Amino acid sequence: MDSAWKESYACWLQYKEIDDASLVERYASYGQRVAVGGVSPVLQSAANECVRGMTSMIGVEPTVSDRITRDATLIIGTKDQVSLEDYGIRTNPFPHLPDDGYVIQTANVGGGVLLLLGKTDRGALYAVHHLLRLMQLRKPVDELAIAEGSRNNVRMINHWDNMDGSVERGYAGQSIFFENGKFADNLERLEDYARLLSSVGINAISVNNVNVGKVETRLITEDWLPEVARVADLFRAYGIQIFLSINYASPVEIGGLSTADPLDPAVREWWSERVANIYRFIPDFGGFLVKADSEHRPGPFTYGRNHAEGANMLGEALRPFGGLVIWRCFVYDCQQDWRDRSTDRARAAYDHFKPLDGAFLDNVILQVKNGPMDFQVREPVSPLFGAMPQTNQVIELQITQEYTGQQKDLCYLVPQWKEILDFDTYARGKGSTVKSVVDGSLFNYAHSGMAAVSNVGRDLNWTGHTLAQANLYGYGRLAWNPEMRIEDVTDEWVRLTFGHDSSVVEQISKMLRESWRIYENYTAPLGVGWMVNPGHHYGPNVDGYEYSVWGTYHFADRDGVGVDRTVQTGTGFTAQYFSPNAEMYESLETCPDELLLFFHHVPYTHRLKSGETVIQHIYNTHFEGVEQVQALREGWRKLKGKIDALRFHNVEERLEAQLANAREWRDQINTYFYRKSGIPDEKNRTIYK
Amino acid sequence: MDSAWKESYACWLQYKEIDDASLVERYASYGQRVAVGGVSPVLQSAANECVRGMTSMIGVEPTVSDRITRDATLIIGTKDQVSLEDYGIRTNPFPHLPDDGYVIQTANVGGGVLLLLGKTDRGALYAVHHLLRLMQLRKPVDELAIAEGSRNNVRMINHWDNMDGSVERGYAGQSIFFENGKFADNLERLEDYARLLSSVGINAISVNNVNVGKVETRLITEDWLPEVARVADLFRAYGIQIFLSINYASPVEIGGLSTADPLDPAVREWWSERVANIYRFIPDFGGFLVKADSEHRPGPFTYGRNHAEGANMLGEALRPFGGLVIWRCFVYDCQQDWRDRSTDRARAAYDHFKPLDGAFLDNVILQVKNGPMDFQVREPVSPLFGAMPQTNQVIELQITQEYTGQQKDLCYLVPQWKEILDFDTYARGKGSTVKSVVDGSLFNYAHSGMAAVSNVGRDLNWTGHTLAQANLYGYGRLAWNPEMRIEDVTDEWVRLTFGHDSSVVEQISKMLRESWRIYENYTAPLGVGWMVNPGHHYGPNVDGYEYSVWGTYHFADRDGVGVDRTVQTGTGFTAQYFSPNAEMYESLETCPDELLLFFHHVPYTHRLKSGETVIQHIYNTHFEGVEQVQALREGWRKLKGKIDALRFHNVEERLEAQLANAREWRDQINTYFYRKSGIPDEKNRTIYK
Repeated sequence: MDSAWKESYACWLQYKEIDDASLVERYASYGQRVAVGGVSPVLQSAANECVRGMTSMIGVEPTVSDRITRDATLIIGTKDQVSLEDYGIRTNPFPHLPDDGYVIQTANVGGGVLLLLGKTDRGALYAVHHLLRLMQLRKPVDELAIAEGSRNNVRMINHWDNMDGSVERGYAGQSIFFENGKFADNLERLEDYARLLSSVGINAISVNNVNVGKVETRLITEDWLPEVARVADLFRAYGIQIFLSINYASPVEIGGLSTADPLDPAVREWWSERVANIYRFIPDFGGFLVKADSEHRPGPFTYGRNHAEGANMLGEALRPFGGLVIWRCFVYDCQQDWRDRSTDRARAAYDHFKPLDGAFLDNVILQVKNGPMDFQVREPVSPLFGAMPQTNQVIELQITQEYTGQQKDLCYLVPQWKEILDFDTYARGKGSTVKSVVDGSLFNYAHSGMAAVSNVGRDLNWTGHTLAQANLYGYGRLAWNPEMRIEDVTDEWVRLTFGHDSSVVEQISKMLRESWRIYENYTAPLGVGWMVNPGHHYGPNVDGYEYSVWGTYHFADRDGVGVDRTVQTGTGFTAQYFSPNAEMYESLETCPDELLLFFHHVPYTHRLKSGETVIQHIYNTHFEGVEQVQALREGWRKLKGKIDALRFHNVEERLEAQLANAREWRDQINTYFYRKSGIPDEKNRTIYK
Repeated sequence: MDSAWKESYACWLQYKEIDDASLVERYASYGQRVAVGGVSPVLQSAANECVRGMTSMIGVEPTVSDRITRDATLIIGTKDQVSLEDYGIRTNPFPHLPDDGYVIQTANVGGGVLLLLGKTDRGALYAVHHLLRLMQLRKPVDELAIAEGSRNNVRMINHWDNMDGSVERGYAGQSIFFENGKFADNLERLEDYARLLSSVGINAISVNNVNVGKVETRLITEDWLPEVARVADLFRAYGIQIFLSINYASPVEIGGLSTADPLDPAVREWWSERVANIYRFIPDFGGFLVKADSEHRPGPFTYGRNHAEGANMLGEALRPFGGLVIWRCFVYDCQQDWRDRSTDRARAAYDHFKPLDGAFLDNVILQVKNGPMDFQVREPVSPLFGAMPQTNQVIELQITQEYTGQQKDLCYLVPQWKEILDFDTYARGKGSTVKSVVDGSLFNYAHSGMAAVSNVGRDLNWTGHTLAQANLYGYGRLAWNPEMRIEDVTDEWVRLTFGHDSSVVEQISKMLRESWRIYENYTAPLGVGWMVNPGHHYGPNVDGYEYSVWGTYHFADRDGVGVDRTVQTGTGFTAQYFSPNAEMYESLETCPDELLLFFHHVPYTHRLKSGETVIQHIYNTHFEGVEQVQALREGWRKLKGKIDALRFHNVEERLEAQLANAREWRDQINTYFYRKSGIPDEKNRTIYK
């Protein structure tokens, strides 16, 4: 790698040399002699990262001992390797921590010693990253007493990577896992990826696209398992379990069977053998991620079986080994007739899965997209959250910006994700938030947590748009701790990534925090979604999906726009929510403005709670959105010289592209609705006829 | 080939055994002893075709002599090989015939002899095909006295075939010329294609796509010239000259020069050498077909040169060898801003080329698309016809049905082409028809005629839709003789292709003759065009091109629709026509209904000459169009058992697809305009909201 790319490539693990001498002195006092409590791969990774970060930041390389010595200044280990009492610590926090939890404690022994102890070795690695983060943030470490764990036991990344090297919905170059029908050779790249993921607590990864092609179907066979195992070994050392996406028709396509019926004994036997074989190669294999009976993918429906029967068959095969089935709920009719106003894609996941609550095995997890449609810039929360008390769930988010600017446009998704996680489903009365569903606490799920589609590719800065690194970071941080405040995640990331110049920190933090709303302003209005170019999904096309088979309509006519999903006069989707959400969405008076057109069809002259009419809101937000992008660009330009040239130009170039995109959105949306409504802009700005 | 495909593959050269004994007897009397006046490849082809057809139709194989004998019953030769006077024919028609002309004459010598004499050997081949056609049509031949020639000296087919085997805008399978980056091996297929083309008088063919890719750029080099020559040899034997589409940037891309500037001496030298080399391989090479400065193709604009400078440079290189430059006029701004209402793509060809009239060399021909846009189902005639008295022109038609149903939908284009050819440009007063421009008679062009994009691919029936064979046939017949009546071309083709059962002939002829209007009925209304899915161009998408860069808009709003191209209030395009056409199109009162929205933006309530409002016309034609397709299907089903099963099912299947397509068009168009206008259907039929 060209050294000019160093900062771009390092993401938030910059480990820049610290120039505050007194701080360096304090850090250095702990960085003299590192002792590691064992030789497991994960502890090795922890020690290596510790040495790497310390050396880089304080300029001195610690000595490392593989056993815990009296004179150690920093100890990396597990709770079983070190007695807290030996260091004068009387209360033991470990019983209250989850398995991945850790303790960071400064002890007044000798000249002072820093304990970085995991409940398991994975926790020790997280503790190291926590310490290095504190150091990158220039925090004092002399009086640390941290005990931390994650509420989510699944913190997963999904790759939609194909073995030909392409990435479905990838906007940062080709796959880092695959190239030309094979596994990629660059293991260093994968290891750096594992470092990045482990630094924010990711503990699971699926490496191939949920749309499993012919070649990828064979990943579960001896053809590829040695290679999969090599990748699994690499990620295991960073506490990350490997999952594979599977083709539900595998028994037929590669097994030589005449059916893939999940109730057929031969099929069950075939999968059991397959799974046993996988575990011979990968003893801690995570399990399968499954897209079945969705968008033309095969599944149990072919054989008259339901999703529970389909998933449980795989669950049984995996259970003896502790493996999981992650079964996606993105199931809907993708051959809908646009003339059919009664079918509502938004209803589909709930209608399919809710009746099966309790029918799934304990090692099956349903993976539910955050909204009922598909990663739009604005959707309500999926009504499936809270609706299945007896079925494990993870939420699926999309880090890759398919519908949110494709890493050309800036769209920082942490605010969106926070809003989703904080949403109160009222499933068990007030306080039944989505985060309490997916962390398993509301219903005592055996397995639950968060998954998200990676935004990473082979671009040297990983994510195409440098600032899109913040989405990967933010996802990891929220998956670890959904309670983190937006401001804190953002401030952390900017400082780690760009350092501590206050003008840089303030400017970039502001840009990030505002960017989602800005993107929403210049794209599809008021929650209606889908006004994008079909296929690639970038740029405006108001009617692009209006007469399609995908169930994605806005129903704009000369009088009004929006989808009536009420019980009273529409598709009845609002009834899938618990009270009082159901009533809130049902009523035009209480439905939030930003979701108005998702739930209601209203005249252009309908007055929002903001006081604006719908049509004037469309005009206003679209003019404002472009102005806001201009302001983003101006703001960024002020940073010239304050950050390295490559990252500066990378973002500057993308802000130019974003501005062009925003202008195109503004003009197409405004013209479209002006032509339809005939209502002029109150402020008489330019709307092309 | 499976013999079940025999009829599908044979197209109009079925040569079915004749069961009328008295007719067979008469034909057989001429089919006893065939004498050929020479051994040129074309005369050989003529003799072979004659033997093939005769043998097949009358069941007896003629003997063939390669010199003209006293006892010959049928003589194939040229005017120089046979003295008409020897056969008692006193008036010599040859001086009045063009080079490709021929004479067919029954002479009362011996038991009767049929003379098939060309002015050149190509004419002799055409005479053989003429005779075989008469026999297939069961016509008497005892008193023939035909002297015929074509007014068009260029009768060309363009292939948009790529060397990877794909065909741009091809709907009948892969290329018959190329596969996997090479020339295809199946020469028999090419020879049968040459037979088909020569049977309708085609005398020129360009074999590679006008969008010339990296591989195809090298077709003019020694890498590929031996292969090109092999194809040229094959087509030469059928009187067809080979042309190549060239990449204007060749001097840079394969010549190692730093420029392709047409005024640069090194560039001129390079092309001259290239051309000389081509003629070493192909002594009668036709010349170059050039798409330059069009849709991102390179051209002289890059170097600040105009089209005349660009074309003449190639013309000079080709002139010593008698080669031609065919320079396409499909030049427009394909990066237009939809907001810009003053730029009008329809104006582009005229604006670019009209000022250059007289500036082109004599061996340069401008190839002008029939309409100012791009092969829409309905457009006005291009105003360039008649506008360039000092510049050779050929008209470009599109046999392949890019915008007219893609050989899924039936759309017989002969009626459209006739309308175009018969259009009076008034360039030199009344009677200045398009056909008189392109046949060269109006302005005494040195070279002119017709070209059309082939609809042929590797499908065993050549054209995907069996009835689309009629478009290839009809194009050839009209190129030979633009005066042929639609009814006659159609009747000929149906009888040649399907035989003489009167119910079959009547039904298919009717279907063909009505099909263009039917297709127009259910697609974009009143000449406005472009309401198709972008990219592949099949199926409805009313706003698909509305906000695009392609200059293809309809400007529908809640009040009205159409493009104002008047001088008074619009883009001024109407002024490109001669009087009185200019005034006819300019005035809302005289503009023909079917082109109303091409020239005018009118309210939905505007009343057409038919008495209907525009909106009611839209509804009526779209409901009617679907009913008409249903009638096509019913009509076709009546033919079950009367034609071979494969062709029957091929068409039946496509009529089903057409019906689905027509319904989709009807509903999307009606709903779109209902949503915009709010005006209900007077007849209260189903329009989805």
